[in-house]
Amino acid sequence: MRDTALPMDDRGLAYGDGVFETILVRDGRPLLWKLHMARLQAGIERLALPRLDLAAFEALPAQCGPGLKVLKLIVTRGSGGRGYRPPEPAEPRWRWTISAFQPIAERWFEGVNVRCCELRLGRQPRLAGIKHLARLENVLARQEWQDDAIAEGLLLDSEDCLVEATAMNLVWRREGRLETPLLDRCGVDGTLLSALEAIVDIDRVRVGIDTLLAADAAWLINSVQGAWPIRRLDDSAGNCLRQWRLATSDTFRQAAHEQLGYSLNLGD
Amino acid sequence: MRDTALPMDDRGLAYGDGVFETILVRDGRPLLWKLHMARLQAGIERLALPRLDLAAFEALPAQCGPGLKVLKLIVTRGSGGRGYRPPEPAEPRWRWTISAFQPIAERWFEGVNVRCCELRLGRQPRLAGIKHLARLENVLARQEWQDDAIAEGLLLDSEDCLVEATAMNLVWRREGRLETPLLDRCGVDGTLLSALEAIVDIDRVRVGIDTLLAADAAWLINSVQGAWPIRRLDDSAGNCLRQWRLATSDTFRQAAHEQLGYSLNLGD
Repeated sequence: MRDTALPMDDRGLAYGDGVFETILVRDGRPLLWKLHMARLQAGIERLALPRLDLAAFEALPAQCGPGLKVLKLIVTRGSGGRGYRPPEPAEPRWRWTISAFQPIAERWFEGVNVRCCELRLGRQPRLAGIKHLARLENVLARQEWQDDAIAEGLLLDSEDCLVEATAMNLVWRREGRLETPLLDRCGVDGTLLSALEAIVDIDRVRVGIDTLLAADAAWLINSVQGAWPIRRLDDSAGNCLRQWRLATSDTFRQAAHEQLGYSLNLGD
Repeated sequence: MRDTALPMDDRGLAYGDGVFETILVRDGRPLLWKLHMARLQAGIERLALPRLDLAAFEALPAQCGPGLKVLKLIVTRGSGGRGYRPPEPAEPRWRWTISAFQPIAERWFEGVNVRCCELRLGRQPRLAGIKHLARLENVLARQEWQDDAIAEGLLLDSEDCLVEATAMNLVWRREGRLETPLLDRCGVDGTLLSALEAIVDIDRVRVGIDTLLAADAAWLINSVQGAWPIRRLDDSAGNCLRQWRLATSDTFRQAAHEQLGYSLNLGD
């Protein structure tokens, strides 16, 4: 693992001035690599970070070694500047870590219980979609519950529109169509979501919780954990809003897991 | 200066999960120390960071040595945790740096040109007021202009209510009353603002830009730079919205500078 210390004057620490990716790597081969690099590049451009040759990252997955790993890659604007004003020129800094990873397979098959968070995401179109480092809203939302029987928390925005879960995107099926919240005002545009949109139609919609409650099925997805069917949704006080009966055959989950190579390993 | 390296798994870097203060120190004596410590404590409580004995910081200002310095203090939730979920227990980490500082005295006397930023702050009451590390909105706003003749940028929220400048609070006088924007949905509750509120009446109001344009005088303030009278306000395209004639006697600025000891040094 690369020496990972950062100086205190790094702007990633000072202001959240940077972006990151967490990438699933199996036996040294990354999953959804192009989509991760595309989002990283989009974040670099959105924050006007200095240009960076992403080819430098190509060699990292092979260093993960055998087995299932998560490669976390952070790119910051680097050190310094007078206050919020970035230095000219800035020298970007990047760091990475590798962690062993084991997906929670029972959540794929048994589904998960989810709650609605009390916190509402602020609307910030300038930061929406990218995976920047200023994620304190997600931290506060994740602090709302300690019960391990609750797998995730749904987030709505300041005008009560559905956005995502604290670390996953949300997809549901309604009247035979797949839908997911628009991510143009807040939220992170997930790489697994992008990969699925390339192979199936998923409508991006601006709707409130009632639309989700009317869905025939719903899933939480991300590029590391895969797809978790939602079994039950509670409000923030713990009252059940809706339960879903899980289908015996879940083609959406299967499509998600094919993207991550999970179907082959676990007979899903 | 304390060894300031931080590990990559520090949550301040990963998520902006922490708070900071920048404190003016003159000849080893801090200005507005109690207010800085009070805001730090408020931030620690709001983020539910582990309790920290702030007495540990009491010895820092004396280490700044002679002259005018800025002491920057960062407190993060420390390392680790599974994703956004904080580790239990978390071990907070704190770091500090000392920098030489020279206020820009001509801005006190000649006033400043200010522009309105295009970026609108997202509304997030859970983070409003505290000086947390997830300040990417401020960075993006400060990137909007490069012209050194523009000293600061005004920020409005997503519903076009006045909030602050990128690194300063905003105060104006209208019909003989001092007013400042409410900071309950976004923005940072400045220590100099708090100090001034303790000695003069300043109404916190939720208003748009028109109220500022109708003001008789306006200032930007913070606990390091002091008070800058606003001479001219432009829109984000550079069109002048309003000019103010600076008063020969500015009692508000004098009151601000007494809080920071600037009046004694510079005959203000």
